[in-house]
Amino acid sequence: MKATMAAATVLAALASGSASLAQTAPALPDPAATDSKALGWMQGFPPPPDKVVTFGNGSFYSFPRTRWSFSHMREMVPTVNVWRGSSAPSVLPVELKNLDQLSFTDDKGAKATWADMLARTYTDSIIVLHKGKVIYEKYSGSAEPQLPHSAFSVTKSFIGTLAGILAAEGTLDPAALVTKYVPELKDSAYGDATVRQVMDMTIGVQYSEDYANPKAEVFDYARSGSMLPVPPGYAGPKNFYEFLVRLKKEGSHGEAFAYKTSNAEVLTWIIKRASGKSASALMSEKIWQKLGAENDAYFSVDSIGSESGGGGLSLPLRDMARFGEMMRLGGKFNGQQIVPTSVIEDIRKGGDPAKFAKAGYPNVAGYGSGYSYRSMWWVSNNRNGVFDARGIHGQRVYIDPKAELVIAKFSSHPIAGNIANIPLTDAAFGALADSLSK
Amino acid sequence: MKATMAAATVLAALASGSASLAQTAPALPDPAATDSKALGWMQGFPPPPDKVVTFGNGSFYSFPRTRWSFSHMREMVPTVNVWRGSSAPSVLPVELKNLDQLSFTDDKGAKATWADMLARTYTDSIIVLHKGKVIYEKYSGSAEPQLPHSAFSVTKSFIGTLAGILAAEGTLDPAALVTKYVPELKDSAYGDATVRQVMDMTIGVQYSEDYANPKAEVFDYARSGSMLPVPPGYAGPKNFYEFLVRLKKEGSHGEAFAYKTSNAEVLTWIIKRASGKSASALMSEKIWQKLGAENDAYFSVDSIGSESGGGGLSLPLRDMARFGEMMRLGGKFNGQQIVPTSVIEDIRKGGDPAKFAKAGYPNVAGYGSGYSYRSMWWVSNNRNGVFDARGIHGQRVYIDPKAELVIAKFSSHPIAGNIANIPLTDAAFGALADSLSK
Repeated sequence: MKATMAAATVLAALASGSASLAQTAPALPDPAATDSKALGWMQGFPPPPDKVVTFGNGSFYSFPRTRWSFSHMREMVPTVNVWRGSSAPSVLPVELKNLDQLSFTDDKGAKATWADMLARTYTDSIIVLHKGKVIYEKYSGSAEPQLPHSAFSVTKSFIGTLAGILAAEGTLDPAALVTKYVPELKDSAYGDATVRQVMDMTIGVQYSEDYANPKAEVFDYARSGSMLPVPPGYAGPKNFYEFLVRLKKEGSHGEAFAYKTSNAEVLTWIIKRASGKSASALMSEKIWQKLGAENDAYFSVDSIGSESGGGGLSLPLRDMARFGEMMRLGGKFNGQQIVPTSVIEDIRKGGDPAKFAKAGYPNVAGYGSGYSYRSMWWVSNNRNGVFDARGIHGQRVYIDPKAELVIAKFSSHPIAGNIANIPLTDAAFGALADSLSK
Repeated sequence: MKATMAAATVLAALASGSASLAQTAPALPDPAATDSKALGWMQGFPPPPDKVVTFGNGSFYSFPRTRWSFSHMREMVPTVNVWRGSSAPSVLPVELKNLDQLSFTDDKGAKATWADMLARTYTDSIIVLHKGKVIYEKYSGSAEPQLPHSAFSVTKSFIGTLAGILAAEGTLDPAALVTKYVPELKDSAYGDATVRQVMDMTIGVQYSEDYANPKAEVFDYARSGSMLPVPPGYAGPKNFYEFLVRLKKEGSHGEAFAYKTSNAEVLTWIIKRASGKSASALMSEKIWQKLGAENDAYFSVDSIGSESGGGGLSLPLRDMARFGEMMRLGGKFNGQQIVPTSVIEDIRKGGDPAKFAKAGYPNVAGYGSGYSYRSMWWVSNNRNGVFDARGIHGQRVYIDPKAELVIAKFSSHPIAGNIANIPLTDAAFGALADSLSK
């Protein structure tokens, strides 16, 4: 029973963008009362038994322990480094402003402040860059600048960007069938899909994230990726590859956006095969070293060392902001062109909003009219041209090109689905953009 | 059966200095034929099933897979970072010499070259500093400069040095009873031991490393530290703390040196309690940041996130050499006094050779007449004043003050006990010292 609960929590953590979660949410706990340090998680040698956070019993993924664990993932699971290289970190100029009293109208029509938004979205850390300068930076609870925080599905946007880089280099053909790179997928849902359909998540695949159904594919996904304990006698897939080849087609490809983590795992497999490199080596070489990152990042890995490209990255906050700033600047950062401008222009143009609309999200900020999904990025097509990377529980890289604004935010919101936090968050971000543009 | 084999291999890996291992060793495999890349471990997406190295079945610790796994520990087990800080790495000047043809007489009386020694000791990477300059640096197989390699019991020398720093600061009293810091140990073997006796391993404790006996304490040690899979229904200790409090006294304290990993784990507990900091935080603050390390190091951790101070460190080669160079220079490196000179002078004086002799090692290089053990360092008391840190399978930090020589070496020798490689290694190191001193 306990295992099923833990499983549901783990898997909810993979379900970025799931609208149903918010609708069934219980009343939310008081954010201040769930501060990780105040609660004493993992303090002492040893910590008291009721203050231990551990993988084995799944407590790892249960709120409010997540307020500690999201900053300490690699202390509980195997990981692989994304190396920063050996040069000095790139400079992020600082010119701090106090934003705490910035006032805005929240998504319910009530007055709120920036500080309210941070608390109400269970923010662990946040950094704001305006015109390339750090104007705000804050850490609370267990978060520290040098500690990578789980980025969950922000991972997908890194994988999508890497695919874009490889395509621009001629190493990967988005128009090709998936099977050109991964013949093993020929009898799966992906047998007749193109790489571009995978990148844009317009794949018809039977992949349920219904946590009430113990036979839902997400459970096998999580077990295959060592994200859930495996019961004795388990005969299911033992790694990501084994999981992916078993996925069955449902419907057709190219017609509707459907957010499914399996697509990001397939794309990760594709870019590894196309480049001959692991995802961690590729990200280090193509992005992390070039950014002049301050700290290494890391991926969680399955039982055979394969990175989770669906949600396995943990990132240091400032370096996630450097990535966002590079995207804002058309790929040029730290004195070099890191991502070809054409790749970023293509992302900013977005996918087809009509296909996105078929996903059936309510018309709220972050999901509403005009939105689309392209190369594993969320694209607003709004008046500021906002585009963003997002991971459940409130992980964000928010890029507002018109306001010259980049925000990186890590959170441990008790509800996985971002629809529970994005409408509030984006109201504050929009107000900040307006205030900076005055 | 397979599990028992794997267990024995795992636990052999913890038995630094065990003389019995060399005596029962089978004929050694050809080193060149066990090169990690040549054998193809973990190559491909996914790797072929017979080329996978994984924790679950224990293949992780079996030679020749160790030639891959010792450079990739954190891809298989949970770990905690030892942060390098945010400043630029300290400069290691380079003035390379070709040492490969350096000739010496090996421990069997035969002629050999430096290159022979590297191959015959299954060297993964080695760096030589003379008068502070890098004169030789080599990586082979799976080793890379930025990849931390398992340092095994070199870990103990870091813990011993940290204890020395805390003692010099007045935070830790070596003359005090262990129970001053860890009252939980009052009914254990350590109930009437002093901190100094723990630091010098003159503890009478029932702790067997007899791999043929399934009831030997090492098995519980490894299971408690998540270094071995735990069988269903396992009721033994679940973390290092639970393991240590159960250890029983055998004989008396302060009379004889007896190399037991449990002592290093107890000392780790003591320094955490004395400082109020985790071992990883303490090492980052007191040593790693001050050295100007190029890369983060890491500890493997047990199921509740506690570092293994007995053998859990993985270190980048160059940074391990920086540590050795700092020790050679009396604690001063990178423009600051990192370890008080008095602490290093005390280590260099060594422990009591008569107590060391009671351990019964054969009279060979690295273990012979005049040797002693002090603050978790091996002290030769030879004409050059050599002292060193060592971990099984050939991990070394070798410091020759007279020759102004520091050597850091990582290996994956098929035999755990260093008595199988140190006599050969030290013959080469001694010849190099002589040649540099000419």
